[in-house]
Amino acid sequence: MLEKYGHGGDWITAEERFGRPPEGWLDYSANMNPFGPPASVERVFRDHWRDIARYPDPAVRALRAKLARTYRIPADAILVGNGAAELIDLAVRGLKPRSALLAQPSFKEYGDALSKAGVPIREWRLDAERDFSAELGNVGPNRYDRRRAAQAESLADAPNLPADGLAAEAASAAIRDLSEGDVVFLGHPNNPTGRLVPDETIRRLREGPADLLLDEAFMDFVEDEEERSLIREAAESERLVVFRSMTKFYAIPGIRLGFLVAHPRTVAELTELQPPWSVNFLAQRIGEAVLDETGYAERTRAWLREEKPWLADRLSALGIRVCPGEVNYLLGELPEEAGLTVLELQDRLGRRGILVRDASLFPGLTERHFRMAVRLREENGRFLRELEQALNEGGGRR
Amino acid sequence: MLEKYGHGGDWITAEERFGRPPEGWLDYSANMNPFGPPASVERVFRDHWRDIARYPDPAVRALRAKLARTYRIPADAILVGNGAAELIDLAVRGLKPRSALLAQPSFKEYGDALSKAGVPIREWRLDAERDFSAELGNVGPNRYDRRRAAQAESLADAPNLPADGLAAEAASAAIRDLSEGDVVFLGHPNNPTGRLVPDETIRRLREGPADLLLDEAFMDFVEDEEERSLIREAAESERLVVFRSMTKFYAIPGIRLGFLVAHPRTVAELTELQPPWSVNFLAQRIGEAVLDETGYAERTRAWLREEKPWLADRLSALGIRVCPGEVNYLLGELPEEAGLTVLELQDRLGRRGILVRDASLFPGLTERHFRMAVRLREENGRFLRELEQALNEGGGRR
Repeated sequence: MLEKYGHGGDWITAEERFGRPPEGWLDYSANMNPFGPPASVERVFRDHWRDIARYPDPAVRALRAKLARTYRIPADAILVGNGAAELIDLAVRGLKPRSALLAQPSFKEYGDALSKAGVPIREWRLDAERDFSAELGNVGPNRYDRRRAAQAESLADAPNLPADGLAAEAASAAIRDLSEGDVVFLGHPNNPTGRLVPDETIRRLREGPADLLLDEAFMDFVEDEEERSLIREAAESERLVVFRSMTKFYAIPGIRLGFLVAHPRTVAELTELQPPWSVNFLAQRIGEAVLDETGYAERTRAWLREEKPWLADRLSALGIRVCPGEVNYLLGELPEEAGLTVLELQDRLGRRGILVRDASLFPGLTERHFRMAVRLREENGRFLRELEQALNEGGGRR
Repeated sequence: MLEKYGHGGDWITAEERFGRPPEGWLDYSANMNPFGPPASVERVFRDHWRDIARYPDPAVRALRAKLARTYRIPADAILVGNGAAELIDLAVRGLKPRSALLAQPSFKEYGDALSKAGVPIREWRLDAERDFSAELGNVGPNRYDRRRAAQAESLADAPNLPADGLAAEAASAAIRDLSEGDVVFLGHPNNPTGRLVPDETIRRLREGPADLLLDEAFMDFVEDEEERSLIREAAESERLVVFRSMTKFYAIPGIRLGFLVAHPRTVAELTELQPPWSVNFLAQRIGEAVLDETGYAERTRAWLREEKPWLADRLSALGIRVCPGEVNYLLGELPEEAGLTVLELQDRLGRRGILVRDASLFPGLTERHFRMAVRLREENGRFLRELEQALNEGGGRR
């Protein structure tokens, strides 16, 4: 498989398998802004590459100050990291949760970070029938069968929540079972589904006793980002942490850059845990530069507003069930009639120079699920043509 | 103080304090190769900056393969990290030592990583009278007063080893007290002293039951690097880990790049703990490129062979006691007659645009210790003139 290291965008593995160099791919397996790095990134390299002869600022002062102005939060509520992945790992180690409720399917690193830290995980299976919306039911205290949980010897052995039509009610019950020292991990919007967490779910989780960890790595792509983001609430709450990535929206994953927003006391604790100079010099400078790229940001949102529904419609026309996500990628489900698994699809597209993400690797998804980025019109046109041919190639297993 | 984040080379704090921009400093507080980044680094930026639009290789395959060829060790004995600092932290968390013996003075991050992981630390105070050589005495089993240790309630409360003339014998006894699950942390060569660990000490430690963690961050600067490095032994031993930095010798600390060498089983375990994409794209490419810079490496060693003794002699002529280190920095001790603390010296030099490292912050050193890089002849000439003036300025506290 192409995700041998757990994620999409692994062009070295793709090269090993299909013999095509990194430049030759049309990459729908990683969710990057297809406009590529904005112009100011090139200027940073031209003017500042020599500065790598000095240590980066260990306290990331200039970038934190600029993020603070941009998001209107205090600088001491911000911790910058070597990508959001470092910060997810750091937050789990720093918060030392008693146990975790983890919505699934979701970004692999939440579960990995929890497992590495030895935190028992209960899964909250999002309901495929409701397009994986993190909705809660509205059930009374006695309706969820508590005996099943009571019979399990430990939290780790507790049954996972059912992935059936009762998912929302079970989730509601699971949330009622949370207690102090627990955490709930949610992608907002979620990866690979692209769904935002409903306001009502966030409200009820914030009223409960557990800490809420919200991954907003793709929030910049959301049309009403400012209203939906919890970034300002996180800066004032000791029970809410928000993760942000700067690498998806600005198409700079190779340089590594993310930040988290939390109460200043939490940030101070996590800063102590972080190794020194974790954020390289150029990432800091690039982060400062791209925050001024308002034209690039507007162009990106205008493109996505038009392109996502266009691509989704055409995928549907090919018989693919498309999850109604809010961001720059789409979760698709191959029609049963196609008689094709995602591994076969990935192979057929790979031979055509196109990478898609095998989404069957996400808990709760099937061997017919794949994830694809939304790219520019011309690329999407080629993608759709190749996809259609791959679907009609015949010779699937079923 | 200039080391408010624990280390030298903090030009932002220097700017805040002395109002001079980063470019304006003659930096003797960080130990970088004064030739600056080799030519191939510029080529990497020119040819590859656009590649940051892709994820870095999560498995760092090309750089690990090249390191393996360079050092003649298996690629699966190598873990690349976001600077050696990440790997020190990772190794301590992965090895989960029962307790640690930590030679002091030494690089702050060993103790920090151990403390963060909750590992009890005993200090091995290196003997100032022996210029901080990590020598062992040759004492019998009954000579060290074991009662003091026995009376202490826990290992963390155990008395530190004495920093007197008996240090070598006490160290020998401490090493005899090591048991399985313990680790010993040593800089090889050590920072800030520049001293290599004596062969005999390494031999006896490797015969003992504890794991040995050797930080070879500055080993590339050592004249007989190949004979002194333990890198090949580490690739075959489950009880020895060697840390290397690529940022000092190639003057690229801003991009972050280090690696560790250990038994493949250890590397596999630590890889599991590391967050994905920890090593950015450009660091990987730069690492590959600089390994071919044999001319740069020869020029660097030729410069250091000449310049270090020259600078040391002139410092001695100013009355400064110089520790006989093997690398590109020197630990100096101000003469008592100067009536000057390192903080005052740092202030006087800071006003002259020169940064030195306050070494009084290292355990076991005094307020008269400072550390300085060896730089190019012209810079060293200016440094010596300014230093002489600073020493003769008068108005010290004593």
